[in-house]
Amino acid sequence: MEKALQGMKVLDLTRVLAGPYASMILGDLGAEIVKVETPFGGDDARGYGPFVNGESVYFINLNRNKKSLTLNLKTDEGKEIFLELVKDTDVVLENYRPGTMEKLGLGYETLKEINPSVIYAASSGFGHTGPFSNKAAYDLIVQGLGGIMSLTGFPNGSPTRVGASIGDITSGLFTVIGILAAVHRRNGSGKGQKVDVAMLDCQVAILENAIARYAVSGESPKPTGNRHPSITPFAVFKSSDEYIVVAAGNDHLWRKLCCILDREEWMEDPRFKTNADRTSHWDELKNLMGEILVEKTAEEWLQLFEKEGIPSSPINDVEKVVQHPQVLAREMIVHQEHPVAGRIMMPGIPIKLSQNPGSIDHPAPKLGEHNEVILERLGYSRSDIQVLKQKGIL
Amino acid sequence: MEKALQGMKVLDLTRVLAGPYASMILGDLGAEIVKVETPFGGDDARGYGPFVNGESVYFINLNRNKKSLTLNLKTDEGKEIFLELVKDTDVVLENYRPGTMEKLGLGYETLKEINPSVIYAASSGFGHTGPFSNKAAYDLIVQGLGGIMSLTGFPNGSPTRVGASIGDITSGLFTVIGILAAVHRRNGSGKGQKVDVAMLDCQVAILENAIARYAVSGESPKPTGNRHPSITPFAVFKSSDEYIVVAAGNDHLWRKLCCILDREEWMEDPRFKTNADRTSHWDELKNLMGEILVEKTAEEWLQLFEKEGIPSSPINDVEKVVQHPQVLAREMIVHQEHPVAGRIMMPGIPIKLSQNPGSIDHPAPKLGEHNEVILERLGYSRSDIQVLKQKGIL
Repeated sequence: MEKALQGMKVLDLTRVLAGPYASMILGDLGAEIVKVETPFGGDDARGYGPFVNGESVYFINLNRNKKSLTLNLKTDEGKEIFLELVKDTDVVLENYRPGTMEKLGLGYETLKEINPSVIYAASSGFGHTGPFSNKAAYDLIVQGLGGIMSLTGFPNGSPTRVGASIGDITSGLFTVIGILAAVHRRNGSGKGQKVDVAMLDCQVAILENAIARYAVSGESPKPTGNRHPSITPFAVFKSSDEYIVVAAGNDHLWRKLCCILDREEWMEDPRFKTNADRTSHWDELKNLMGEILVEKTAEEWLQLFEKEGIPSSPINDVEKVVQHPQVLAREMIVHQEHPVAGRIMMPGIPIKLSQNPGSIDHPAPKLGEHNEVILERLGYSRSDIQVLKQKGIL
Repeated sequence: MEKALQGMKVLDLTRVLAGPYASMILGDLGAEIVKVETPFGGDDARGYGPFVNGESVYFINLNRNKKSLTLNLKTDEGKEIFLELVKDTDVVLENYRPGTMEKLGLGYETLKEINPSVIYAASSGFGHTGPFSNKAAYDLIVQGLGGIMSLTGFPNGSPTRVGASIGDITSGLFTVIGILAAVHRRNGSGKGQKVDVAMLDCQVAILENAIARYAVSGESPKPTGNRHPSITPFAVFKSSDEYIVVAAGNDHLWRKLCCILDREEWMEDPRFKTNADRTSHWDELKNLMGEILVEKTAEEWLQLFEKEGIPSSPINDVEKVVQHPQVLAREMIVHQEHPVAGRIMMPGIPIKLSQNPGSIDHPAPKLGEHNEVILERLGYSRSDIQVLKQKGIL
């Protein structure tokens, strides 16, 4: 079956996380991803742990379905080959620091002369405009600058990093949207364009409700720890063994909860009658509920809540996530055979398309694995390719 | 100037956050979003604070650029009007609990009979397949089930919620990608398809590096608090006034850092010589650096680090984010006039397109503001529309 983006060609210069995450999504959905890597070790992420049989599982996760071409873009012949490839690609994707491609003589202004319909997508820390444009950014830095760390964690505690590289990953997602929107536009106009996505901008874009709260109150929202900011009780509690989420989102569920906790008197308690009452007496309610919830195990409580239809859940660690029946039923944990590392567990594809579903067909490539395939398309012979290798161009 | 998705028509049945976030992005990029709301109060988010002059700023943020049509989908005439609209739309987007559209007689199987090229996108908590499919999910619940809470926060501390609704928002982003991929496919085939995106699946998809670590070690990764898991020093420190991030990502930067901290002897200290040494002696180094960093203000340290090119940053609260020069230069904070609420601050558009940029042209609609405009397209007269209103269908 054809995949949704089959036929789309992406020349992918990205390294590490934000860019490779974007090209992974495009590749999962069927685009051909030609990953252009330096002949001197390739993508830095090839050197990031954890390793199996010397292969980076970090890299294997992010680079499935891609082809690898080595190319020394600092040489004239390397640039020439790159420009040949640009002629016949839909998308060029890069996540260098702004200005790097121009220094190589391969900036968008140059590439669009060669291929006016090319979509040039740049994912960077601060974007291609503005006073911070030339600075390097890392996930921890944009999480700090962009506000999310000030909202994560507990009141009066230390600002807390989100436990996944959300700065890189959201930037990857917005970059994919920008590319697909530009490809859509091109169908009408025939013209390509530049897509400029900054990690910092994406952090601002995901704050949304915090900005609304600041705009109205004039005060920066504080971290709310483990609770819903305005629905009560909707929070994390400790049972006798594990933490659980309990979410009694309306008065009906609240009354059911009072029965399960054997505190029918709370229904008439003026501190807890409405959601507004419960929210303003949250500190008291938290302590009172905490004393009761600590008396049974997570499993026992979750069964009781489940029976009465009160939304609740365990807090899963990664081991429990990868074994969760819904996660497995949705094929969100897949295993792929890698020629060196063996069978590798990785996340599946969260975009489920009924007619042209994505798939994971090829393991992450060895460095330069597809040099021949790709250069032969351009008319290079096997012996030309040997010469290019010897010259350090491939 | 035409916007990238100009001409694309989206019939948007979504409420609250995940779905409206997706249609906001499509609308920012130029798609026409017809938000179909119940006549009885509309999108629940219209009732969510904070409020200005009685209008929800939460709703205003998420529903810019959209048109509002009220429609009672439980009536025959309401369904009939909806099906008329389906004939001439590119996308139907909904975030009901799975099965709801089928109960209304408006499931994908029905809609595709009427319009085989329609893209039907469903954003739900657990997805349209699997044993948990029919359950309700909330952001806090998928953050708990999906693993990210187990990775956020401090070792031996409580599992910590990400301070933005990342469960909803990432689901919105993947839904947009699914829609645009399906629209792309349709250009070739003429056929639409169903796009099924689950909040829980998206949580798994953004864990990536944690799954790799689990796959290799067999142990669930622990929360790492405020530090990079493998680069040292790359962490949050407290200065004499505010928290800051310091990121000396390689040996060269480490040596510069030693000089700034006036601890040249650390360069030769066997505990700190290489990144691996520093990582395995992190607890000691953290304390030693902490003692020095607390002696100057954040501003003083950041200037010293900036001068030597050591990546560093403050931890901004929302007030500082919305005033940050790079955020402003990138137009990531915009102000829009709302007819009732006045001038409202909101996040800008993080996808910067050079030729067909997105824009924020219209404030969030009043409930049913576009009833006439949309129904007149279908041939209804003003008096027909009055009758439909009186009958409670609009």
